[in-house]
Amino acid sequence: KHGQVDMAHGAGGRAMAQLIEELFAKHLGNEYLAQGDDGALLPAPGAGRLVMATDSHVVSPLFFPGGDIGCLSVHGTINDVAVMGAKPLYLSAGFILEEGFKLADLARIVQSMAAAAKEAGVPVVTGDTKVVERGKGDGVFITTTGVGIVASGDELSGRAAQPGDVILVSGTLGDHGMAIMAERESLGFESPIVSDTAALHGLIAAMRASGAEIHVLRDPTRGGLATTLNEIAQQSGVGMMLQEKALPVKPAVSAACEFLGLDPLYVANEGKLVAICAARDADTLLSAMRAHPLGAAAAIIGSVKADPHHFVQMTTGFGGKRIVDWLSGEQLPRIC
Amino acid sequence: KHGQVDMAHGAGGRAMAQLIEELFAKHLGNEYLAQGDDGALLPAPGAGRLVMATDSHVVSPLFFPGGDIGCLSVHGTINDVAVMGAKPLYLSAGFILEEGFKLADLARIVQSMAAAAKEAGVPVVTGDTKVVERGKGDGVFITTTGVGIVASGDELSGRAAQPGDVILVSGTLGDHGMAIMAERESLGFESPIVSDTAALHGLIAAMRASGAEIHVLRDPTRGGLATTLNEIAQQSGVGMMLQEKALPVKPAVSAACEFLGLDPLYVANEGKLVAICAARDADTLLSAMRAHPLGAAAAIIGSVKADPHHFVQMTTGFGGKRIVDWLSGEQLPRIC
Ligand SMILES: Nc1ncnc2c1ncn2[C@@H]1O[C@H](COP(=O)(O)OP(=O)(O)OP(=O)(O)O)[C@@H](O)[C@H]1O
Ligand SMILES: Nc1ncnc2c1ncn2[C@@H]1O[C@H](COP(=O)(O)OP(=O)(O)OP(=O)(O)O)[C@@H](O)[C@H]1O
Ligand SMILES: [Mg+2]
Ligand SMILES: [Mg+2]
Ligand SMILES: [Mg+2]
Ligand SMILES: [Mg+2]
Ligand SMILES: [Mg+2]
Ligand SMILES: [Mg+2]
Repeated sequence: KHGQVDMAHGAGGRAMAQLIEELFAKHLGNEYLAQGDDGALLPAPGAGRLVMATDSHVVSPLFFPGGDIGCLSVHGTINDVAVMGAKPLYLSAGFILEEGFKLADLARIVQSMAAAAKEAGVPVVTGDTKVVERGKGDGVFITTTGVGIVASGDELSGRAAQPGDVILVSGTLGDHGMAIMAERESLGFESPIVSDTAALHGLIAAMRASGAEIHVLRDPTRGGLATTLNEIAQQSGVGMMLQEKALPVKPAVSAACEFLGLDPLYVANEGKLVAICAARDADTLLSAMRAHPLGAAAAIIGSVKADPHHFVQMTTGFGGKRIVDWLSGEQLPRIC
Repeated sequence: KHGQVDMAHGAGGRAMAQLIEELFAKHLGNEYLAQGDDGALLPAPGAGRLVMATDSHVVSPLFFPGGDIGCLSVHGTINDVAVMGAKPLYLSAGFILEEGFKLADLARIVQSMAAAAKEAGVPVVTGDTKVVERGKGDGVFITTTGVGIVASGDELSGRAAQPGDVILVSGTLGDHGMAIMAERESLGFESPIVSDTAALHGLIAAMRASGAEIHVLRDPTRGGLATTLNEIAQQSGVGMMLQEKALPVKPAVSAACEFLGLDPLYVANEGKLVAICAARDADTLLSAMRAHPLGAAAAIIGSVKADPHHFVQMTTGFGGKRIVDWLSGEQLPRIC
């Protein structure tokens, strides 16, 4: 009706069935989703342990340079499964739609999801559709859950960083968060800052194939690199020392951060990872990362230290030292 | 701060970590959630095929007689996994919180989730927390995803109903939807209508242990029994004939439906299932259902017919016949 989501689309009857068939199943379509049962019946996953990760996505605006909530919700969950060391196999997607949301925008979002899922080789096998009244939502929220499988011995966790290990990032910092902020604040840059949103499981496979002894992988999303490293430091019971000069940040991101009073270390990424590996393998790993399109700007940024306080510190450009704390406050809400 | 959700609780920093630790992990706590990585590393699931199901929950009001959004979000997803014939193993939970939501209410909801998960033996192993500004959400939305495993040959689908099969329901119809509606409309009944929200995997295990040849199971949620049977009729390419007199409906639900101009056949249930089985096993199955607390009011309500139109029909109390169509329109939005 009028090309908009209405309450009937969430009521469980004909209108919902039609929306699922003509929009969701049409674009996301695959043999599992086509079963049309209460859930998806999937193949036996093979030997190994299961990995499960979930993220609700509430990014605002829904469309931004480099992506939209659709592809973001596919990438984000694939990345959380992949950094556990697992091969992502299947996704589910729950949609919470606001009454009045344009069906054309929804179609764009679902097409973007479908394209991202296809490119990643990880199908959306089951879903759900709810509708809330105008003013009780914000266009669309998407919750994706991913399931993967990891062979015994290939599991990764944030608990395995060891003093002496080397810390790498796969590329420039802050691109996603600043793309969202620039869009929201209508900063009129000549060329827009583009989100880095991407699925990292291919890069990770290449990194593991290098033979480097990887101890930890994590995607520095909300809270940025600073918060992610503090989490790992705490989980592993170690400290870290970063080199400010080594941190890759695009000039445009750097400029936008300065303009808004933000620190790129705390700004979210959606297509980057932190890797912590045995020191002797750092160069091997760096080469493997740089050889992959999503790791072309990879860099060694610091190392793991013994530290009973589990501090993350940084040697600044001027040769000083400062503590890089957790994000506190609400710096950048609704960036994913 | 002030006992309310604020934007910082979703920003990825210290405030979020504290909320997760002191509220979510505290109540939902289990060895998998305690890993604190990007996802949960789970045991190998054993032989069999995976089943995955997801539901976003947006029920309004959040608290209602017989339950709340917390236990509902556990039950609903367990049921979707269980009606596929699978054993539910793990749940994920994504929370979308509205700024200003009372932390005390959130705690009640999470405690209810935790109790439901514990009773069901299906832990919440990973989660996510997002916060949206006041007026961009509605208190809390919860998306749960369930993973289960089903042994080869035990899978069920809506495609297996056959002419001659018998149709059963596990209890009274419309309790959940009318509990929500009565609460919303402030119908001042002497004793409130209580939601039937419950996890059905125990009942299903008992039904399967009876040895009856079960062809289809499904939980008649949004759209009610009428819509669920139409879905199955369409999937299986059959028709159905129901006996109106045989449909179990509580007098209070019946009265409330009449008052509001609703038909209990279209009102949602959250702790009931439809079973379709081989005719010769119907009595065996009925006995097994009645022997379980969640199936005490089970009843045989009709049978499957050959019908090229895939109509669901009903012989009425007066001996007439009418077509029971899909739900059309928005009869009861936001009941789950
Ligand atoms: N947005 C969506 N994208 C893809 N598939 C969807 C979507 N919404 C629903 N589906 C699929 O449609 C079918 C019916 O979904 P539905 O939510 O009605 O089932 P249910 O969870 O059993 O019912 P309820 O949500 O009322 O509990 C399922 O196979 C589901 O995977
Ligand atoms: N509401 C919640 N209930 C239970 N566990 C939660 C909840 N929210 C987050 N967690 C757990 O806290 C940890 C950190 O979650 P977080 O969402 O920060 O990770 P992430 O998904 O990698 O980051 P992002 O959401 O920014 O992409 C994970 O182990 C997650 O399972
Ligand atoms: Mg169902
Ligand atoms: Mg994530
Ligand atoms: Mg559903
Ligand atoms: Mg992550
Ligand atoms: Mg359901
Ligand atoms: Mg998350």
